[in-house]
Amino acid sequence: YRYYLKPHICTNKVFSPQCFRKDQNLISTVNCWYLVLDQTRRESRDHATLSDIYNNNVIVRLAHVGEDVTRLFKKSKDTGIQMHEELVKVTNELYTVMKTYHMYHSESLSAENKLKEAEKQEEKHIGKVNDISAGLLRHGHDERPQRRSSVRKMEKMKEKRQAKYFENKLKCTKARNDYLLNLAATNALVAKYYIHDVSDMLDCCDLGYHASLARTMRTYLSAEYSLETSRHEGLDLLEGAVDAMDIRGDKLRFMDTHSQIFCPPARFDYQPHMGDEVCQVSAQQPVQTELLMRYHQLQSRLATLKIENEEVKKTLDATMTTLQDMLTVEDFDVSEAFQHSQSTESVKSASSDSYMSKANTAKRRANQQETEGFYFTKYKEYLNGSNLIVKLQAKHDLLKQTLGEGERAEYGTTRGRRNVRARSQDSGQPIPVVVESCIRYINLYGRFIFTNLSSSLCHKEYVIVNFLQMLSFSFSAFVLAFYEMELA
Amino acid sequence: YRYYLKPHICTNKVFSPQCFRKDQNLISTVNCWYLVLDQTRRESRDHATLSDIYNNNVIVRLAHVGEDVTRLFKKSKDTGIQMHEELVKVTNELYTVMKTYHMYHSESLSAENKLKEAEKQEEKHIGKVNDISAGLLRHGHDERPQRRSSVRKMEKMKEKRQAKYFENKLKCTKARNDYLLNLAATNALVAKYYIHDVSDMLDCCDLGYHASLARTMRTYLSAEYSLETSRHEGLDLLEGAVDAMDIRGDKLRFMDTHSQIFCPPARFDYQPHMGDEVCQVSAQQPVQTELLMRYHQLQSRLATLKIENEEVKKTLDATMTTLQDMLTVEDFDVSEAFQHSQSTESVKSASSDSYMSKANTAKRRANQQETEGFYFTKYKEYLNGSNLIVKLQAKHDLLKQTLGEGERAEYGTTRGRRNVRARSQDSGQPIPVVVESCIRYINLYGRFIFTNLSSSLCHKEYVIVNFLQMLSFSFSAFVLAFYEMELA
Repeated sequence: YRYYLKPHICTNKVFSPQCFRKDQNLISTVNCWYLVLDQTRRESRDHATLSDIYNNNVIVRLAHVGEDVTRLFKKSKDTGIQMHEELVKVTNELYTVMKTYHMYHSESLSAENKLKEAEKQEEKHIGKVNDISAGLLRHGHDERPQRRSSVRKMEKMKEKRQAKYFENKLKCTKARNDYLLNLAATNALVAKYYIHDVSDMLDCCDLGYHASLARTMRTYLSAEYSLETSRHEGLDLLEGAVDAMDIRGDKLRFMDTHSQIFCPPARFDYQPHMGDEVCQVSAQQPVQTELLMRYHQLQSRLATLKIENEEVKKTLDATMTTLQDMLTVEDFDVSEAFQHSQSTESVKSASSDSYMSKANTAKRRANQQETEGFYFTKYKEYLNGSNLIVKLQAKHDLLKQTLGEGERAEYGTTRGRRNVRARSQDSGQPIPVVVESCIRYINLYGRFIFTNLSSSLCHKEYVIVNFLQMLSFSFSAFVLAFYEMELA
Repeated sequence: YRYYLKPHICTNKVFSPQCFRKDQNLISTVNCWYLVLDQTRRESRDHATLSDIYNNNVIVRLAHVGEDVTRLFKKSKDTGIQMHEELVKVTNELYTVMKTYHMYHSESLSAENKLKEAEKQEEKHIGKVNDISAGLLRHGHDERPQRRSSVRKMEKMKEKRQAKYFENKLKCTKARNDYLLNLAATNALVAKYYIHDVSDMLDCCDLGYHASLARTMRTYLSAEYSLETSRHEGLDLLEGAVDAMDIRGDKLRFMDTHSQIFCPPARFDYQPHMGDEVCQVSAQQPVQTELLMRYHQLQSRLATLKIENEEVKKTLDATMTTLQDMLTVEDFDVSEAFQHSQSTESVKSASSDSYMSKANTAKRRANQQETEGFYFTKYKEYLNGSNLIVKLQAKHDLLKQTLGEGERAEYGTTRGRRNVRARSQDSGQPIPVVVESCIRYINLYGRFIFTNLSSSLCHKEYVIVNFLQMLSFSFSAFVLAFYEMELA
């Protein structure tokens, strides 16, 4: 809680954000802001890269896929049309050969009928001829040659019709055979078309579509995943920086950076007047009684003040705890807003939950500011009390020392000076921090500066001006501190 | 590689993207497109949420942090001014008491000098008086009373000056004591200011700044990480879909969806003419010799054609392998473009590497299209060859069967018909796929449809029109397929 000065050798750094940027001793909050800036820059660069990849890679790929699909479809369509033409040709042929078969079969049938008719007529005629022959045998033989020629005629016709019939039957058989063979071929071709060719043509239509599309998609995925990885890296860096936020460390770093300003000035030295050899509080009579009385008054006043201020301190600490509880409430998880539930309706409402309900926020902030105001009131009260205590305590301690020395005057007046350290150790208290701080300061800056300072401090006006300058410096340090926070 | 029809019961789905959306049997490429759409929608929703969180949470928090810092700085500045006033007051007091001490010490010194002077004069006067006294004893005693009064005067003055000296010395002692006590008090207060108060005031200035800023940063981080998680989920879904891309599966799904179109039509039946009882190829004399000759011609022609077409097939397959190699080159990794090297210069060039160098791409595409063109030429050649082979093979097989039957005519003409299955098994070949396909079709659609079809197929014109309709249907399937690809 308390800060002990550790002045560093001043490097006279120029104060500028650029300077902080490179500083290893960057204040942790400023570091966070720079990482947010870095993350924004990184996202900007990544989105430019993504845009480049979309424009010059993904879109080109898609255009190629589009071109390919169109070209392949055209080519497949050509093949398909050719196939259809082939099928139509084959079925037309089939129709033709079937017609031919039907025609030849009809002709074969009519030839058969005609043949049968001829055969019937011949039978009838033969029967008639036999009757006539029998009649002729009875009535004489004058008409025999005439009748013989008609039988011969009939036989000739029958033979002719028979020849016609066999011819037609052969034609029909050939046509039927042709039809049957064509039927088999057509059926085989149609089956092949449906079983192999359609599938093959779909393959042709699709040639490389899946592969090209997959490559495009994988380019998209690679870009998006890479973007994510880069983004995640940046977020992890930022998260690390947020985890590493450190109030004490920042204060130390801030004070180290401005050690010139925060370094306590040299103590005011006792300035004896024109050869006055007395340099200690004199406790000889007649002032001794008065000093003793004053000492006892201081003692009792201090006791009261300390009790009072301790009460103020307790209130102050309790208020700080309350404030800390208010300031560190874990209200930053917004992951619920990114849950994609089935119903899209319920998504929107989630984000404006916890932290951001207006009434809640206003109430919280009013509460916080009230507590903060109370804290400052109590802090001023505590500060005034402790200032008074410090002053009175210094006087009290000096009087105690003087009066003690007065009592032990017989041991010599110089002893008290020599044994400051020993005595302070005797009293059970550690070496005062201011002394330690001065020792460190001297060790760092060397006797040179100290001697310089000591000599310059001889002129009291100069010392006061210097001190006021110091004050204004430390004031400007506040301004600086605020500026940094504003800047951050 | 080959596709065997598996017709499904038609559900008469209306073709629309919306319909596909819900379809479990979504074609894998279309599924990818829908997932890209989903991802875009998801990102849009997430960015809206992010915007909401930035506007209504992060920015409000930052405004509060800003307000708080300003207010706290003002309050701390007030406290600091108060502290400085106290320090200035104390140092002014110190200056005053030092001056007082110096003044009293001067007065004490001058009083001491005056006293010393008076003592010297007295001594001188006493010496003179003794000389005069000796002279008076010689010249008479008239002047004795006059000289006695001057000595008394001098003694009185010496006493007065002695009193003044003691008074001034006491005043000086008191002033010195006051100065020394104030010096101690001032030094203690200055030390306290530099060691405790500055640090405390910095704490006041900073009150809650780290905590509030950390909460803001964590809100930012929570939002960004949640966005990333959501995005990653979407990308994983898409990656899964890309991995699951499946050419064969898609073709099956596509054909299943349009099974009406891709289902092979019933075989053309033999249409005997007006009671013609012959329904097989007749191989009796006189056609037998001719058929035998034709059979042998077919046999030798087929052998030649098959060898030729096998060569074409080999070229076709080799071309396909070359094409596949071109189409599946793994050129999609763009992660290098998102590497943030130290020099930002080298980043930009990475993205337009591998795939997208113009010359390279043009060369590759020209090469690809050339290969593709060659593939199509060879495919047509193969198709024509295989069509011819199928037709001739059907005729050849029918002739072989007929002639075989002719040779085994004594076993009865019906045997051949009954034992089609047995014979095809005898020949060592499996059941023709078209038969299997028909069996499956009948099992699915039942005898009813089959009978219907059979009866309708009696009218040959109707059959041909029907077939042409089928062709145009399967044609529209191509259009559909292309439309789907375009849509995708």
